[in-house]
Amino acid sequence: MKSIVHCYGHKRVTLVEGGVTRHRSIFNGLRAFIEDHSLGSALQKPEVVIIHDAVRPFVDEDTLTQVTTAARQYGAAGVVRPLVSTVIAPSADGCLDHSLDRAKHRASEMPQAFLFDVIYKAYLRCSDYDLDFGTECLHLALAYSKTRAKLLEGPPDLWKVTYKRDLYAAESIIKDRISNHLCIITNMKEEAVQIGFRLHENLKSNIKHVKSVSSSMCKTVQDIQNILRGQCYNFISINVTDSCLEECRKLIDLLQAACAGAYYQSVVVSVHLALPDQCANEMQKLSKLRQLAKEAEKSDILLYGLLVNFSKEESQLEDVARQASAIITALITDRNPALIGQVMVA
Amino acid sequence: MKSIVHCYGHKRVTLVEGGVTRHRSIFNGLRAFIEDHSLGSALQKPEVVIIHDAVRPFVDEDTLTQVTTAARQYGAAGVVRPLVSTVIAPSADGCLDHSLDRAKHRASEMPQAFLFDVIYKAYLRCSDYDLDFGTECLHLALAYSKTRAKLLEGPPDLWKVTYKRDLYAAESIIKDRISNHLCIITNMKEEAVQIGFRLHENLKSNIKHVKSVSSSMCKTVQDIQNILRGQCYNFISINVTDSCLEECRKLIDLLQAACAGAYYQSVVVSVHLALPDQCANEMQKLSKLRQLAKEAEKSDILLYGLLVNFSKEESQLEDVARQASAIITALITDRNPALIGQVMVA
Repeated sequence: MKSIVHCYGHKRVTLVEGGVTRHRSIFNGLRAFIEDHSLGSALQKPEVVIIHDAVRPFVDEDTLTQVTTAARQYGAAGVVRPLVSTVIAPSADGCLDHSLDRAKHRASEMPQAFLFDVIYKAYLRCSDYDLDFGTECLHLALAYSKTRAKLLEGPPDLWKVTYKRDLYAAESIIKDRISNHLCIITNMKEEAVQIGFRLHENLKSNIKHVKSVSSSMCKTVQDIQNILRGQCYNFISINVTDSCLEECRKLIDLLQAACAGAYYQSVVVSVHLALPDQCANEMQKLSKLRQLAKEAEKSDILLYGLLVNFSKEESQLEDVARQASAIITALITDRNPALIGQVMVA
Repeated sequence: MKSIVHCYGHKRVTLVEGGVTRHRSIFNGLRAFIEDHSLGSALQKPEVVIIHDAVRPFVDEDTLTQVTTAARQYGAAGVVRPLVSTVIAPSADGCLDHSLDRAKHRASEMPQAFLFDVIYKAYLRCSDYDLDFGTECLHLALAYSKTRAKLLEGPPDLWKVTYKRDLYAAESIIKDRISNHLCIITNMKEEAVQIGFRLHENLKSNIKHVKSVSSSMCKTVQDIQNILRGQCYNFISINVTDSCLEECRKLIDLLQAACAGAYYQSVVVSVHLALPDQCANEMQKLSKLRQLAKEAEKSDILLYGLLVNFSKEESQLEDVARQASAIITALITDRNPALIGQVMVA
């Protein structure tokens, strides 16, 4: 935990030791705000505290604002969702005792927010049984601080990552989010502009935000940082010069400098053009891409190659651009490290 | 629905029109067993019926057997799971009224099974309110047939595919399942056997079930059908002859004949060997793989190429085999149709 906090440069995190149950851990967290800290990290007692689960990684700022505002007004607030399955109560012999009306119940999710005094007092007063077997902070606020929590309908993304399938879902959601921005970098050579324009048009239908910039606008670490700041982690570099790998290497160097401490891996697809009879020749030159990709991977940059059979003929060129776009989309979406340094052909 | 039933050759399916609510649809299904069918598809009234949701696609045979056996004994049986979130009851003004003890409640999942007479009688007797707003068949059996259902703890895979994230999870689970068998087909040339053995050893750590067979054992449609029957949908074909694409084409032809009506896409990775200085030459020959891959795709076969730099040196060969195995695993796991016909290099 400490190394993660350090790695991403978080400055306002205080770590507190967990307890043996959920409620005991939360209680430890609350106590950190009022106890004397001989370690010098005295925290100020806040008006409102938010309680959240690490297993609900997709919480958005809007939800946090809503529960905080409601907590200030009502003393306590939590997020709820409709029940997906009917809830039933079993009898002691493992048979159905009764079932609950699904429309009259809700699943209680996180985050929840409380006036600090409301929830802290509830934890001070509650029983050991509550601390060991309870699961619901809103219940403690109601039972021990006489505070009826405001319930807010939350977004579906607050679900709890519990089973293996939830890890699959979480991975796909993250990949989805970091794959919906793409930056196409072209130099001013005629062929580069021509193919760049067509890729842009085709990729628009697969990727939400596509923008094209001239390579002269991507010359400094600052330029790249500006692009990354727009949550764009995917780059296509279109190269038509003989020293094509040099251009690619420069981009990688800039990205390495700009990405240090970034949350996500970047993807670079280095696009090269070849007339049909030069294809084998170009392919051989591009074999050096594998070494470059290995180096880039150390800085969390996934580099792939794409050789585009350039044709002067309109319909052929359009067909090639369509194939190239499908390949680029696949590489960006899958983000598979086993395929770095490979050169695809469109 | 009819076209799906036809496409996969199901013989014992009767389609019944759905109702406007869950309960009305189920009732329609039950009625199909006892009503006169002028259409000639008279179904026999069964002792036990199983009710299931299409949105829970990962039901296993064992669970179906268990609910059926329990239904025969108790009259009704259903599958339950522990609650992931606490369930609460809101008051009319949107605040917390009370929360339920998570340990004393369960989520009711599907499948459920019933003695036919128990559930049919319950549907005949229940109110319009039940049919329009109810969600729980076990409740109807209890309320209208005085039958207390036996509750069985089910596996986590019975969850309901509800949100977009569930589609992601479902896709990953399916890909996982069809990616855990692999068949390596080699001819008897020395180099093929050598690289085949090393790939086998390396792939074992990524893929659960790897088996190697000689190409002389894969000469007929029947041979391939036997492999598919073992739930193996992934093939590596190691080719060292000059007519390498011919061997690959033969395998594709056999697979096309063997796979007709198969549930899943197959993956073929065509592995070719080249001494380092022949690499460019081989690469050019393999450009024809793209055309072959396009044809194969029409029969739900995903074909990829892999060129392995063959070396006589022990440590280099091991390194290459490791890279090749990582690439093969990526291709089989991702099953990305946009990359068919591409030739990777290890």
